[in-house]
Amino acid sequence: MAVYTDVSDEALASFLTDYALGELVAFRGIAEGVENSNFSLRTGTGDYILTLYEKRVDPRELPWFLGLMRHLAQRGVTCPQPVAGHDGEALRMLAGRPAAITSFLSGVWPRRVRPEHCRLLGVALATLHLAGADYGHERPNALGPAAWRPLLESCRSTGDVVQPGLVAELDRALDSILPAWPSDLPRGQIHADLFPDNVFFLETGGSRTLSGLIDFYFACTDLLAYDLGVCLNAWCFEPGMEFNVTKAKLLLAGYASIRPLDAAERAALPVLAQGAAIRFLLTRLYDWVNTPPGAMVTRKDPLEYLRRLRFHLAAATPEALGL
Amino acid sequence: MAVYTDVSDEALASFLTDYALGELVAFRGIAEGVENSNFSLRTGTGDYILTLYEKRVDPRELPWFLGLMRHLAQRGVTCPQPVAGHDGEALRMLAGRPAAITSFLSGVWPRRVRPEHCRLLGVALATLHLAGADYGHERPNALGPAAWRPLLESCRSTGDVVQPGLVAELDRALDSILPAWPSDLPRGQIHADLFPDNVFFLETGGSRTLSGLIDFYFACTDLLAYDLGVCLNAWCFEPGMEFNVTKAKLLLAGYASIRPLDAAERAALPVLAQGAAIRFLLTRLYDWVNTPPGAMVTRKDPLEYLRRLRFHLAAATPEALGL
Repeated sequence: MAVYTDVSDEALASFLTDYALGELVAFRGIAEGVENSNFSLRTGTGDYILTLYEKRVDPRELPWFLGLMRHLAQRGVTCPQPVAGHDGEALRMLAGRPAAITSFLSGVWPRRVRPEHCRLLGVALATLHLAGADYGHERPNALGPAAWRPLLESCRSTGDVVQPGLVAELDRALDSILPAWPSDLPRGQIHADLFPDNVFFLETGGSRTLSGLIDFYFACTDLLAYDLGVCLNAWCFEPGMEFNVTKAKLLLAGYASIRPLDAAERAALPVLAQGAAIRFLLTRLYDWVNTPPGAMVTRKDPLEYLRRLRFHLAAATPEALGL
Repeated sequence: MAVYTDVSDEALASFLTDYALGELVAFRGIAEGVENSNFSLRTGTGDYILTLYEKRVDPRELPWFLGLMRHLAQRGVTCPQPVAGHDGEALRMLAGRPAAITSFLSGVWPRRVRPEHCRLLGVALATLHLAGADYGHERPNALGPAAWRPLLESCRSTGDVVQPGLVAELDRALDSILPAWPSDLPRGQIHADLFPDNVFFLETGGSRTLSGLIDFYFACTDLLAYDLGVCLNAWCFEPGMEFNVTKAKLLLAGYASIRPLDAAERAALPVLAQGAAIRFLLTRLYDWVNTPPGAMVTRKDPLEYLRRLRFHLAAATPEALGL
């Protein structure tokens, strides 16, 4: 549900004069995405997405994100392409927010993940990792392992309202995960938030294709295999939180068909999956205890990730994850 | 912000097999509308809107609304057109809700109303009234004057939390409005909710046109001039709640250029504007005191309509409203 900032007619009309997109034909808020305000925009030249970057996005980092999207697209990854204005710039201000127009991607994100989605996802993720290899700018992962203890500290006095004993359980989990965290695995540009609602698929003539990846605003430079940890969490659990090893095998096999994992990455997969689970658990917990009642924001249940974390701590072998 | 019900891939795919719309190309929730769930839908044959009707809409009334939209379009009113499936039906079930696909309308609703918008609105409203004249089915106005006392009763114990003395002030207002309510004015099909976000405009080559009207789910059979009362409230007040008589004159002149008001309608305009103000005030008040904190619904401020109501009670002449 994401239109935090609305745009006046005059501001939009004035904004569009900076582009060669023809006349405005339609403009509607999109009820997807949780960080930014998104609008579908139709002009005389086609369909676009207009994004207003809200306060969680650091404006100084936007050129990195937009540059990565351009770089990836030039190497065959279908993702939104920033549209430059007359001045060659893709980024400008609108309604007091940094704003950019990007291309419209066809496809539908899967409300229910099927095994075949996971294989296609693995292929796309490995393709993204290879395509990002020569994007020569680093962006540290602001929500990587160094952030997890401080995030938990900020929830220490209030976190147990979600579930008694939760903070102590997360202390013990971090005691186990952080010392085991690998440092010497292959690194590169990762998406870091590749949930089902960021991946579009199309079915044409009975065959399913992955039509694009969106929402690169958590992308960063980190361990490539950590993206697999994120996807194992986000794509391979059933609604009842049972781990679906068939989906995991297809995800990993699809990935390996493009970029085989090395031995160290394979060995590290369990702790990477544990880390990914606790990363989303901690940010959801932080949002849960810090979102005032009545705020127009969807709070996501942190406990779904506690159940994933417990699975990954108990499983703890590459084989249990489908390798 | 309106996606109350999401639709699974399988349910959507199955739903679309009932139509000759080609293959699914894109599907995104729309962050507009407050009563129903709306999605933009692109298929091989074009763009559409998919609406899932939520609990405030009585499914038995949907054929009336869809029939009215079809009837109006055949008579030159640009509004969403229900798309029939292979069985000739426009209405079926999806995700446990009544659902319909309608045509996509170009245009943008005005975030800031300009005087010229009001003239075009008046023309469109009168055109709608004439076009609806031979739609031979009646639908009583469920939120007409007979509903206002019961609505206020349901807020009697809690309404003053919004503002001390509010309930007593509304009692007095109804004591003044209800006995003066006209009964013998021209009647017909009215929109009854023609707020700026339900009216689309396009600017092409420097000239502005009204490109369509949407959201007919409060439409009903009532006094035609009551729709002008609604529009005087919704379009002719500035953000500081000053009445803009220039906008009102243009609205009324645009209307009269297509359908001149008779003497009784002109004389009744002040009480119709008072009634429209208290109707929106009462439903907003009801929603305000009955929406649990944290519910994912935008509560609209009832007091904006108290200020409009006070203006209309004090003004009380057709001339003050721009006639």
